Amino acid sequence: MATTTKKDLIDRISLRTGIKRADVKTSVQQFLDEMIVELQSGNRLEFRDFGVFEVRDRAARTAQNPKTLEQVAVPARRAVRFKAGRLMGESVMQPAASRQTVGAG
Amino acid sequence: MATTTKKDLIDRISLRTGIKRADVKTSVQQFLDEMIVELQSGNRLEFRDFGVFEVRDRAARTAQNPKTLEQVAVPARRAVRFKAGRLMGESVMQPAASRQTVGAG
Repeated sequence: MATTTKKDLIDRISLRTGIKRADVKTSVQQFLDEMIVELQSGNRLEFRDFGVFEVRDRAARTAQNPKTLEQVAVPARRAVRFKAGRLMGESVMQPAASRQTVGAG
Repeated sequence: MATTTKKDLIDRISLRTGIKRADVKTSVQQFLDEMIVELQSGNRLEFRDFGVFEVRDRAARTAQNPKTLEQVAVPARRAVRFKAGRLMGESVMQPAASRQTVGAG
């Protein structure tokens, strides 16, 4: 699996659109920075077709280890949840099964 | 919980940086579009400090409804997984408990 970075996308966008590389870079970096600021403030980010980001709180709880039956304290945590939108969903999330051939045996 | 859109962030970035609104808008929109293209191609997106996006396949499986004990077919599916990076983690993911006061009773 190849890894794509911000730099890869910034170079590609500048080349394709003719917008100065420095302006694309600033726009993209500030966009990501502002996303963090918004989530930090407890806001939800909704980008049409792309998806939704939101922070979910999970309270501290006690869980049981199913093997040892031991009680384990699970601390409170926050997590950023991403839910893919329409376009992302349609183009990326084809189930793996639809790309497999059904074998004869 | 307030919802923040692409437009909100584009306006803010253009105002702050002085980059033409149209150029910020194109950069941000192409950035999101290219993210979808990359995930579609099976690539992993890694944005330093922000986080990692990747597509995970989950095979079809049979699950049991714990109440009725009925066997249920769960189809194969793909999901985009987002894992928050260092900066996102430090600033957003303070556990909820650290913001609560411990009560006396």
